Amino acid sequence: MRYVVALRYLGGDFCGFQVQPGKRTVQGCLNDAFAALFGCPCAVTGCSRTDSGVHARAFCATVEPSSAAAPRIPAEKLPLAVAAFLPPDLAVVAAGEAPDGFHPRHDVAEKEYRYTILNTPTADPFYTGRAWHYPRPIGEGAVRAMQEAGALFAGRHDFRSFMAEGAHIADTVRTVFSCHCRRDRDRLLISVSGDGFLYNMVRILTGTLVEIGEGKYPPAAMGDILAARDRRAAGMTAPPQGLCLYRVVYPAGRLPGAVYRALCDAE
Amino acid sequence: MRYVVALRYLGGDFCGFQVQPGKRTVQGCLNDAFAALFGCPCAVTGCSRTDSGVHARAFCATVEPSSAAAPRIPAEKLPLAVAAFLPPDLAVVAAGEAPDGFHPRHDVAEKEYRYTILNTPTADPFYTGRAWHYPRPIGEGAVRAMQEAGALFAGRHDFRSFMAEGAHIADTVRTVFSCHCRRDRDRLLISVSGDGFLYNMVRILTGTLVEIGEGKYPPAAMGDILAARDRRAAGMTAPPQGLCLYRVVYPAGRLPGAVYRALCDAE
Repeated sequence: MRYVVALRYLGGDFCGFQVQPGKRTVQGCLNDAFAALFGCPCAVTGCSRTDSGVHARAFCATVEPSSAAAPRIPAEKLPLAVAAFLPPDLAVVAAGEAPDGFHPRHDVAEKEYRYTILNTPTADPFYTGRAWHYPRPIGEGAVRAMQEAGALFAGRHDFRSFMAEGAHIADTVRTVFSCHCRRDRDRLLISVSGDGFLYNMVRILTGTLVEIGEGKYPPAAMGDILAARDRRAAGMTAPPQGLCLYRVVYPAGRLPGAVYRALCDAE
Repeated sequence: MRYVVALRYLGGDFCGFQVQPGKRTVQGCLNDAFAALFGCPCAVTGCSRTDSGVHARAFCATVEPSSAAAPRIPAEKLPLAVAAFLPPDLAVVAAGEAPDGFHPRHDVAEKEYRYTILNTPTADPFYTGRAWHYPRPIGEGAVRAMQEAGALFAGRHDFRSFMAEGAHIADTVRTVFSCHCRRDRDRLLISVSGDGFLYNMVRILTGTLVEIGEGKYPPAAMGDILAARDRRAAGMTAPPQGLCLYRVVYPAGRLPGAVYRALCDAE
């Protein structure tokens, strides 16, 4: 049996999702935990390669024991069964049977990332490792400029300007469904939803929006930055700890209900 | 000059507020940080002795350098100046000049604690060390029973039943202004405000409310538990990591505005 699971993890102590020799990764921890549970190696496939330090409130993966002799654990019991083998910064929050042919990365319809900027003069222990501490005040006008530039970011574009240098992807066209920036007391929250994202795309977007808020570029410059198709046209890359993969949406009816809800429900 | 400061800390890696030889405490870290900043020992007095593992979103302390030769750092610059000497789980978020005769513990008018229970089948990495993970479902009826019992907890009472055994305090009468219990999605939030609290009082209250929610006692039993004036009449002590000192209120006009707001503003 192949399972589909909804994961949640704090990224601070992980070198990203994907297995790397000698490094602590989410996939590596899942490989070890499921191998211990099923008594055989298991194939683990994820919906995304989150960067080192990036968090996931919703992450979809499939898990398939390699041996036909592996115990057939009912899917609804899998989250608790595997919990004993997982560290405190990683949890399986829901599980179901994977539909035939389902692929967590290829089948995704929409992903939403949220980026949290803590805009206070001094750091806040409650946000250490969970936000970008940006001490310079970002005023109401700056947030409006960021929101305006975010609206120009949305749409079907070649996002090459917002891809880390060194990433080699031929097709850099994606559709961003929405991009919002709002203040919630001491925090600035940037939420961006789309059909796919390039390497470092949301972190470069965030750095660029903050520079627009600072007045380095006018909001309308977002169009020029996109048109340049050159990483050097965009702003700085914001640090990873403010970024969280927040929702992962699949076509209606494609996933078991409990897994779908764990991945898609927004707070 | 004597300063009054608003602190914020995550309690997980501290053995409580008060200095203890050989242990990492909030007061110990403050002593070290301010001694390094001012170049002399400093007297640090806090508003409360929070337990090991308990967090503070608002905590009031006074800081007084022992030497008249210490640099006279303007109060508004103190939070940033001392930040370089503080660990990431402890911050000074506001500072002012302490009024004559001000004492952080004696002058407090109201304290509010919040207790967070995470009520999900599996643990959530985002709440590790920040909530009590209680996996058994707490239904709507249970929350109503807890709310009803909480209303009986409020008032002027002898709270001896809600004091840890071994604590020696002659006067165990306190006034609880309010005690509420509500559900916020996956979490149960208990907030309790009063003029003072006994050792472990909110943690024993929380454990007792959960047992009332479980049906071990009816809500009206809260009156009998209070009347017993005996720790054995109340329920279990909930774990420390769910507890946070949330607001500390002083009489209007007593504190500099920035410090007052940092201590009293509720989210």
